Amino acid sequence: MSKPKGFEKPIGVKDYLPHAVSRLRQIENQVLACMSAWGYEQIMTPTMEYYDTVGVASSTSDQKLFKLLNNRGTTLVLRSDMTAPIARVVASLLKESEFPLRLSYHSNVFRAIEEEAGREAEFFQTGVELVGDASADADAEVVALAIASLKAAGVDRFKIAIGHVGFLNGLFEETLQGREEAQEELKACLLGRDYVGYRERLLALSLAEPVQKELEGILRLRGGQEICEQALQLGANETARAAIHHLREIWDVLEAYGVCEHVLIDLTMIGDFKYYTGMTFEGYAADLGSPVASGGRYDNLLQQFGRPAPATGFALKTTRILELIGDSTATGPAERILIGYDAAGRKQALLEAQRLREEGSAVIVTEKMDQDAQKAAAAAADAGSKQEIVYKGITFSRLLTFFGRGGRA
Amino acid sequence: MSKPKGFEKPIGVKDYLPHAVSRLRQIENQVLACMSAWGYEQIMTPTMEYYDTVGVASSTSDQKLFKLLNNRGTTLVLRSDMTAPIARVVASLLKESEFPLRLSYHSNVFRAIEEEAGREAEFFQTGVELVGDASADADAEVVALAIASLKAAGVDRFKIAIGHVGFLNGLFEETLQGREEAQEELKACLLGRDYVGYRERLLALSLAEPVQKELEGILRLRGGQEICEQALQLGANETARAAIHHLREIWDVLEAYGVCEHVLIDLTMIGDFKYYTGMTFEGYAADLGSPVASGGRYDNLLQQFGRPAPATGFALKTTRILELIGDSTATGPAERILIGYDAAGRKQALLEAQRLREEGSAVIVTEKMDQDAQKAAAAAADAGSKQEIVYKGITFSRLLTFFGRGGRA
Repeated sequence: MSKPKGFEKPIGVKDYLPHAVSRLRQIENQVLACMSAWGYEQIMTPTMEYYDTVGVASSTSDQKLFKLLNNRGTTLVLRSDMTAPIARVVASLLKESEFPLRLSYHSNVFRAIEEEAGREAEFFQTGVELVGDASADADAEVVALAIASLKAAGVDRFKIAIGHVGFLNGLFEETLQGREEAQEELKACLLGRDYVGYRERLLALSLAEPVQKELEGILRLRGGQEICEQALQLGANETARAAIHHLREIWDVLEAYGVCEHVLIDLTMIGDFKYYTGMTFEGYAADLGSPVASGGRYDNLLQQFGRPAPATGFALKTTRILELIGDSTATGPAERILIGYDAAGRKQALLEAQRLREEGSAVIVTEKMDQDAQKAAAAAADAGSKQEIVYKGITFSRLLTFFGRGGRA
Repeated sequence: MSKPKGFEKPIGVKDYLPHAVSRLRQIENQVLACMSAWGYEQIMTPTMEYYDTVGVASSTSDQKLFKLLNNRGTTLVLRSDMTAPIARVVASLLKESEFPLRLSYHSNVFRAIEEEAGREAEFFQTGVELVGDASADADAEVVALAIASLKAAGVDRFKIAIGHVGFLNGLFEETLQGREEAQEELKACLLGRDYVGYRERLLALSLAEPVQKELEGILRLRGGQEICEQALQLGANETARAAIHHLREIWDVLEAYGVCEHVLIDLTMIGDFKYYTGMTFEGYAADLGSPVASGGRYDNLLQQFGRPAPATGFALKTTRILELIGDSTATGPAERILIGYDAAGRKQALLEAQRLREEGSAVIVTEKMDQDAQKAAAAAADAGSKQEIVYKGITFSRLLTFFGRGGRA
């Protein structure tokens, strides 16, 4: 193992330069403001958690967790999502708070293996958890808020695909009873959106033709509200039917929100988090293959922390949205002004800087301004010019007269 | 080692509930806005760094670093400050950018041993680095910005104590030449502000009386600008004299900034970071023993990353400021409104919620509102009441008429 060079940083993590930070902060502030308008209050939890509590309860596979030991030899993890830590807080610090609880967060999370595939080992998520409400209205609220949040983030063209883990569970339980391995293989294909693989495995199972056709038919169960009707005709399993009825209720509420233009039903969708128990959804932006949002219902997680309760929520993949949106929305201070001075003009220059800062401008002062820059400053001031000036690599909207000898002090 | 309980979090780390997050965010935003007005641009760096690069270069002792291994067996650390990571960025991603560079940050940092003493293992810092300017004006700029930042954070009564590592180094080099161990012992006493211990060690060294008196005399070198004159009379060592002259220049610039009421000279002060090479300072708030800000000049750090340059900067101890300021400044949304509905009134309720959110209110909708709450809502609406209403533990400034059957839909 060669020693890393001084300027290197670990694989899979990023530096954000001022331009990117400005855009990231803008997304963060606008999304959190949107969540706040829906009554969600922001909380923060530590970067490190116990492996045996939050680490085990999290949706992340063991090998993807960053682990470290504290001074006492206890294994800690860097948080891999915010859902499990928030469940811990709801069951401890907030245990006296009445349900439903509406909580939001903006946070970095960590996944160890992602770096191998060139994906980020540390990235940002902005999300909410709605804890203590099992209704379809609660599920619809988080979907509608995900839509509002994507808009607040500046994502214009996107679709939310909604599914329900109960539908596939019910259908597979009915058609492939006792064949857990076959069920897991088929689910793995759907999770990876490998529909060719799904068909191949289905053929390899040598099922009776009606069952074979039924299971192949679910690949067509993607579209509008009518998909629910088609799904109900597929099988009579109680779990699957209850899932579809719940999705129809969610759709009705989403219609009342007036957001169905962004929504489609996708019954082939399996949430990628093992703790999902009901509705799951993913948000896809136009021209981007991987999701920019994901969420779902997780009614069994809270009981692992000692306060059983239904819950639903989502996270925007903020880092991915930042890449998607690019440079289009960056904003800076209204005006960036450079003021030069020498010892004789210092006091006057610093007073002027203070005045301009209080007015909302970004002001850089420098006691080292070479003759050329001084002349340019004087010329610009005399001309009343509004031309942009580049000094030492920074673009200034104004360059104030040099204060001092040879200047105007 | 017993397994941690489900609701437990590691020792030394904190959850921040909505009220605390709101205050922390307010401090963060106001301080970053202040730094932006002074021309400092925000950057972000990863939580994890290589031990062999940033870990070694950081000011934190090895045992205080949180260490972990990545998949390749390379040792990583959780950043213990932001100065070393920013030096890495200046020498890599920003290596083509002209000096001076003005960079700001708000970030969590990690210190492993602190948890043992009941101190925090993860806490927030908000700070700046001014890279590529060796002048006294640059040192004065960061001190003046530290003062402006503390005010922006809401800290009203505070003092900034300024020292210079060159003064004690020069004086000790002159009076205790070749006695490195004695020098280190005396410096350790000063760092811990253990003046009794300092006098005891001094006596134990059995020095000639004039030297003994001179070294004891430095304990009185705390006060206004006049301290510099007194210090110059103490010894003739060139390093010490140069340090004092630099401090006098800084004082002159701070007078031009008009901030000297907040500043005192403290020549007994030793910065607690091993990389300081010149002026160092600490900010103390009234009624709080430990500093709320610290900073200084570090002209040798950048060369460790391959781009030698002078640099100066500071960090506010944001978490400590949060504790100091308490509940006094928390702000929330202008109005918090609850809207109840049933299936019949849903659409109307959700439309009204959207309208109110766009107007800047925080609106919670619920399809589960019991009869009593519905009646209270109707009564409040009829009376045009502005009374606060508590529903499920949340205080609302308004409770809108229930939309639906029995309501106004």
